[in-house]
Amino acid sequence: MAGTDLDPNRDPEDVEGETAIHPDDVDATIPDTDPHLSKEFTARVIDAIRDEDQDRARSLVSELHAADLADLLEGLSSANRISLVQLLGEELDPEVLYEVDASVKADIVEHIPNEQIAEALTELDTDDAVYVLEELDDEDREEVLQALDADDRVAIEESLSYPAESAGRLMQRDLVALPEFWTVGQTIDYLRSETTEIPEDFYDIFVVDPSHHPVGTVPLSRVMRTHRPVTLGEMMDKDPYVIDAEADQEEVAYQFTKYHLISAAVVDKNRRLVGVVTVDDIVEVIEEEAEEDIMALAGVADASLNESILTITRQRFVWLLINMITAVASAYVISAFGATIQQMVALAALMPIVASIGGNAGNQTMTIAVRALATKELSTLNVWRVMSRELTTASMNGAGLALVAGVVVWLVFQNPLLGGVMAAALLINTIVAGLSGLLVPMGLSRAGIDPAVASTVLVTTITDVVGFLAFLGLAALVLL
Amino acid sequence: MAGTDLDPNRDPEDVEGETAIHPDDVDATIPDTDPHLSKEFTARVIDAIRDEDQDRARSLVSELHAADLADLLEGLSSANRISLVQLLGEELDPEVLYEVDASVKADIVEHIPNEQIAEALTELDTDDAVYVLEELDDEDREEVLQALDADDRVAIEESLSYPAESAGRLMQRDLVALPEFWTVGQTIDYLRSETTEIPEDFYDIFVVDPSHHPVGTVPLSRVMRTHRPVTLGEMMDKDPYVIDAEADQEEVAYQFTKYHLISAAVVDKNRRLVGVVTVDDIVEVIEEEAEEDIMALAGVADASLNESILTITRQRFVWLLINMITAVASAYVISAFGATIQQMVALAALMPIVASIGGNAGNQTMTIAVRALATKELSTLNVWRVMSRELTTASMNGAGLALVAGVVVWLVFQNPLLGGVMAAALLINTIVAGLSGLLVPMGLSRAGIDPAVASTVLVTTITDVVGFLAFLGLAALVLL
Repeated sequence: MAGTDLDPNRDPEDVEGETAIHPDDVDATIPDTDPHLSKEFTARVIDAIRDEDQDRARSLVSELHAADLADLLEGLSSANRISLVQLLGEELDPEVLYEVDASVKADIVEHIPNEQIAEALTELDTDDAVYVLEELDDEDREEVLQALDADDRVAIEESLSYPAESAGRLMQRDLVALPEFWTVGQTIDYLRSETTEIPEDFYDIFVVDPSHHPVGTVPLSRVMRTHRPVTLGEMMDKDPYVIDAEADQEEVAYQFTKYHLISAAVVDKNRRLVGVVTVDDIVEVIEEEAEEDIMALAGVADASLNESILTITRQRFVWLLINMITAVASAYVISAFGATIQQMVALAALMPIVASIGGNAGNQTMTIAVRALATKELSTLNVWRVMSRELTTASMNGAGLALVAGVVVWLVFQNPLLGGVMAAALLINTIVAGLSGLLVPMGLSRAGIDPAVASTVLVTTITDVVGFLAFLGLAALVLL
Repeated sequence: MAGTDLDPNRDPEDVEGETAIHPDDVDATIPDTDPHLSKEFTARVIDAIRDEDQDRARSLVSELHAADLADLLEGLSSANRISLVQLLGEELDPEVLYEVDASVKADIVEHIPNEQIAEALTELDTDDAVYVLEELDDEDREEVLQALDADDRVAIEESLSYPAESAGRLMQRDLVALPEFWTVGQTIDYLRSETTEIPEDFYDIFVVDPSHHPVGTVPLSRVMRTHRPVTLGEMMDKDPYVIDAEADQEEVAYQFTKYHLISAAVVDKNRRLVGVVTVDDIVEVIEEEAEEDIMALAGVADASLNESILTITRQRFVWLLINMITAVASAYVISAFGATIQQMVALAALMPIVASIGGNAGNQTMTIAVRALATKELSTLNVWRVMSRELTTASMNGAGLALVAGVVVWLVFQNPLLGGVMAAALLINTIVAGLSGLLVPMGLSRAGIDPAVASTVLVTTITDVVGFLAFLGLAALVLL
């Protein structure tokens, strides 16, 4: 937290650096970097939970932002977490349901009556309510939906009818949509009089035609600066950014980033305005999507530290097993050269270097390619330029590494031919690595497979097999 | 672009899917997924450039959003890019300087007179102008600054005086700061009359005390909904989120994400309001920071496909060389067991499997740890819980893989002892991988080193050495 200070009025004791480790305090998982949630504060909450002191628990957390209360709940042991939720009862800030991790949410929701959840959802924006409901199991979701009043239920069910990770799920349904001929004066008067339909925070006024098709947007700051008689039609940005409710959230995030949007209109199949996506939801999508790529490249599915051990283990096991099966290909190549290795056992010591450098070089190009595909910098149209760049880079690096390794091997083993084999194999494998690091993700992407998920296994297998084959094959040809 | 449609009025021909590859068209690097920049459109622009037809070039790009013109410039060959910039002359949208990639920007800026750059900068928000200047070399920056008028120069130099990647660099200096006792009516009247000092887009009104310390914020939507006599003091959110101008941008992004902020006040050392950070800048920071981690883990520094080949090659070479040097440790371990391998050459074929599975398992844990550290989910306080989780997962996965591999080796080589050695080595290496995957990033982070940069090399070296050592060592003990 160095240098940042979010709450000038907070208790200065709360920020004292605490780095001692308390291995037996299973509750103490709050990052010590957070000024709102010091270890002392957490300890006081845990005390209140142990004493089952409802008033103390409620008053302690009453000042917390929902995001901080969510962090607190994530940090507590499961038993304490449930006790705290039960102590808070109806005082639990509904926003917390939106803020907590999926795994913690499941834990909490089971211990709150469905009516209370329904009650909480009506206080949330539709997009946040949908997000909470998405993660309930089917039975709970049905029960909660039944407990909602008809209006809210219909709105939420309509959002849920859009595909997962689509704009329709992200959108908030309450918005300000007004006709072109309204003046600034009418608009302000309307906003001042209307209390129910308008969202608490909004950034743009959407201008619609009589069939409710969006025809323009007016940023609030422009309304504020304009005199009362001017009409919305005169001051609006025409050709508003319009997002199809079925559009994938990654695509929506791309548009928000590229055009620096704060909010954008969402339309249904008939191009009628049905909702608005705001940038705060997009910030989360961007984090999720970049995270997904990192995780997928390493073969892990979920970033949360709160996921159950069994879920994590199973999912990682599958990845490791696939990798082990592909490693058999390398083992097969090596065993084909058993006689060669037996004649010159130094080969066994050197061959992993060739494979490993190939793996690293492939990984470099692959990572660039996977991200460039995700951010739309790489397409079929510039692949030739990028490929020639990657090939040049790979050849130059391969040549440099070959020179270094070749000379060292020559000197150490006093065998110029062995040095030459090492150099040649390294050069070949580095070039193959550069090529496969680019072509594998592009091929997967074309085949409709997420390149982040499958590229690592394929590229590593190629560079391992080629590395062992080139090195041992050349050795068999040249040295024996 | 499936499902999304940003500009309902565009020429429908522009979105036709075009997947043919034109290897000799060096200009055609515009992603074909972008509806604003079809191949046909790009070809027409290139024609205009070749004909040196200024009017045609200007009219073609006049309708493009700055972000699209930036994409177009990035896609052109360097010669065409410069020609286009020169054809556009003063018609070049200043925003483009902000939108293009750093390497392309350097290219463009060299071919624009410094006076024109200075002119362009005065039309940008201060934060965007600072961003453009940051990437000029010292001499050009000095010249451009001298060409600015005094007011703009002082504002920009003040921003540049804050550390790189700090809130001070991200902030916009124009903002609306008003005293507590002002009413909604006064505020609206002021905004309607004032034309120079107010930024074009803003989302919050900052309430300041007489010494210009921020004491509250009022979202614009709230001002719009409130009657004229109400004062800002009555309707403001107290305890506003206040960011220190020296705070690191990653920290700022963390706060924006956590608290769903749209804009936040930035204060100097005396806690006086000096600027405002808005969420559109934060969206870019979040993308950059997540990107940095992916790239650093793979040993590549920059995601841009426009970087020069020499820069890329040099930077990747260093990483590969470091990896090659560490790979010598494994080679040394293997060569110590030369006699063992010579007696049973199957060991040479199987040992890479053990090392590779360890590398993959280590990579899984390491990726989780690096991201958890970056997003502040992992700290010294919850390390014990996370470590026990990772150890359990590693042991379970290690046991599962050991069982599979042990039985397969036993059956294939008809040697139960060899199967046992394989199983034991795999189990050991998977557990070591889990531990080092967690402890290496945490140790680096504690030592003040970016864990994303150095973890991969260290973890891979550990799992390689331990893999070869455990497998060959056990084989030497048990089998021979």
